[in-house]
Amino acid sequence: MADFDLIHSLVRQTDSRIVLLVLDGLGGIPHPETGRSELDVAKTPNLDRLARSSLTGLSLPVGHGITPGSGPGHLALFGYNPVEHLIGRGILEALGLEMEVGPGAIAARGNYCTLDDSGVIIDRRAGRMSTRTNQELSTRLGSLAIDGAEIAIGAGREHRLAVVFRPAPGSPSATVGFIDALTDNDPQREGEMPQEVTAVVPEAESTERVVRDFLWQAGEALRGSHPANGVVLRGFSAMPHLPLMPDTFRLNPAAIASYPMYRGLAKLVGMKVLQTGDTIEDEFETLRSSWNDHDFFFLHYKATDSAGEDGDYHRKVQALERLDRALPALLDLDPDVLIVAGDHSTPTAMAAHSWHPVPLMIRSRWSPYGDAEGFSERECARGILGTIPATEIMPVALATAMKLDKFGA
Amino acid sequence: MADFDLIHSLVRQTDSRIVLLVLDGLGGIPHPETGRSELDVAKTPNLDRLARSSLTGLSLPVGHGITPGSGPGHLALFGYNPVEHLIGRGILEALGLEMEVGPGAIAARGNYCTLDDSGVIIDRRAGRMSTRTNQELSTRLGSLAIDGAEIAIGAGREHRLAVVFRPAPGSPSATVGFIDALTDNDPQREGEMPQEVTAVVPEAESTERVVRDFLWQAGEALRGSHPANGVVLRGFSAMPHLPLMPDTFRLNPAAIASYPMYRGLAKLVGMKVLQTGDTIEDEFETLRSSWNDHDFFFLHYKATDSAGEDGDYHRKVQALERLDRALPALLDLDPDVLIVAGDHSTPTAMAAHSWHPVPLMIRSRWSPYGDAEGFSERECARGILGTIPATEIMPVALATAMKLDKFGA
Repeated sequence: MADFDLIHSLVRQTDSRIVLLVLDGLGGIPHPETGRSELDVAKTPNLDRLARSSLTGLSLPVGHGITPGSGPGHLALFGYNPVEHLIGRGILEALGLEMEVGPGAIAARGNYCTLDDSGVIIDRRAGRMSTRTNQELSTRLGSLAIDGAEIAIGAGREHRLAVVFRPAPGSPSATVGFIDALTDNDPQREGEMPQEVTAVVPEAESTERVVRDFLWQAGEALRGSHPANGVVLRGFSAMPHLPLMPDTFRLNPAAIASYPMYRGLAKLVGMKVLQTGDTIEDEFETLRSSWNDHDFFFLHYKATDSAGEDGDYHRKVQALERLDRALPALLDLDPDVLIVAGDHSTPTAMAAHSWHPVPLMIRSRWSPYGDAEGFSERECARGILGTIPATEIMPVALATAMKLDKFGA
Repeated sequence: MADFDLIHSLVRQTDSRIVLLVLDGLGGIPHPETGRSELDVAKTPNLDRLARSSLTGLSLPVGHGITPGSGPGHLALFGYNPVEHLIGRGILEALGLEMEVGPGAIAARGNYCTLDDSGVIIDRRAGRMSTRTNQELSTRLGSLAIDGAEIAIGAGREHRLAVVFRPAPGSPSATVGFIDALTDNDPQREGEMPQEVTAVVPEAESTERVVRDFLWQAGEALRGSHPANGVVLRGFSAMPHLPLMPDTFRLNPAAIASYPMYRGLAKLVGMKVLQTGDTIEDEFETLRSSWNDHDFFFLHYKATDSAGEDGDYHRKVQALERLDRALPALLDLDPDVLIVAGDHSTPTAMAAHSWHPVPLMIRSRWSPYGDAEGFSERECARGILGTIPATEIMPVALATAMKLDKFGA
């Protein structure tokens, strides 16, 4: 695992630029019939050419056998030990919706759901209701008056929402803040009633009262609505305290991501989140237009993971090919260090995140190896970097960007 | 090193089955004349075919350059840090003879030996006396009355024995137990007298008295016997406290091993030890007949190590070929995850355990790589797993058996 303090003691600010291009869920496994992975099959001449002039290897987001969520997967790429730095589900969701959480507040991730007359959940996703209906209901819930708290509702896509609970000024929790040691009310199963949110430590009891009050009032406010007449919450969590990249790595980092959650993650580690569009072409255009303002850019590409999660081999191949076609816009900028990495593998054969080490390449003037014939799991496995913890990517990137001083005399 | 607590927090019980087949002393080095290792030369079509559809790599039992004994070698394969969890020689021997040790007791490993008239050891193994004579002498020593202790003698093969010292009820050591901080009386050299067993901490002084009393009485009891007229003891040790596999990994594990020591090791980590016969065919038959009763099976094959220790290249090749011929009985059971591993290397060129990383393959539906052309040191060194600590094998096996939940959101 990378030694944060050591890196911090050696790093210096320079003009060189690092680009970290994250292809979400990048890695795959051989197709059970053809023996070829999505990367093997995809026509990606630009990625392949890059591999032939890059350091290649595989990265382990958390460790052998460990399947990471998006939070740990990205933190590791940013150089942070993901087991030490845990990010709650509620925080991830709230940040993704660009909600302010702040000290003393807690956030929860939620679903609008459908309850029957006896209060049993019959559809956890309220028929994947429209985002527009979600917005209407969320506005309604946002106006509820909860004793001792200010609440904010973030409407996500379809049935998803985030709720932020902030202690009201002058209320009993205003000084110590709300405590996130609460059980979920979401049973994560249909055919059951929502559970009571319960404090697991005595200090969280006043937070419990506020959340229960909100859930009771929300139930009243949604009564009779269709298809969503209930709310379930999970992953109550407060803001984690993460060292910030500008301090730790003396970088002036920017994030370019069309998906909310990844913007949120980037903000947590001190990146400036840039406005961008929905496509990878938009992201590369944002990169070009802000090229002179930052020395580290994190770009996020979601389509590979979405196809992987849906188990759609062909669409994952297409997602890789689309990225590859767009890539020259990035290559034209000629970053001093270009990292192409994934936050985890999402093999379409599994239709889920997985533990498989993730293909990785780092292109820089000072690591002109090019030992791979193309960009794939097998080629990267033979790479000169070997299989390394993902947390080691930042030190290698900083070094090849000539941003690390010598250690010792 | 695998993070035990993290694995524990993610693991869940499922129906999938893992088989860990340990070929003791598996790894070798190229023959000085032919440049080919035992695995290179052995005709092992089944192992080779398996390698072509498995994750392959090399495992490091303890660390680069470290030659492990059987205890650390196996503990690492079971997922335990072998430097943190030490097992004394006495305990290993006693457990191998299926002796009860229990809390407060200590065990020592011993040899019957031949002393000359002046008490000097002239044969540390008493001419590799018969196991039958050993049993007679051990019965005699087992009836000695030692003040403050109950003793139990385990007769091993030929000249080998184990002694367990248990505080007598109501004796001074009954509450705190015996303390294993004692020097050996076995000089491990011929031409010298047995040494005095000596406490190395004051707390062990009453234990020292008991052991010295036993050794004195044993000397009297054996006086005049031939070829064994003395006993030397080494490796005084108490039971270690190991986390148990059923708790740590939520497994219901079974051990199938014809050699006593490996059954003892398995028991230490909470495996159920199954009755089996002397051959690998017997072990595979035991596996088949208990297939529905467990979700993890450890099978142990000794012949590779015995040939290695004897420096017999040809016999090690034959041992590998014999295992390979028997293998279809195991393959027919089609375990969800099949691990073929070694606890350490035992190159015949060295006639001893060694530090060389050990060939490893893991076959599972979810890791269909097959990047090796056969099962050998060289092929495994190029495998996609790379060279990994042996403690990482369990996390990978649990993951590919779909027994590990996702980490983080």
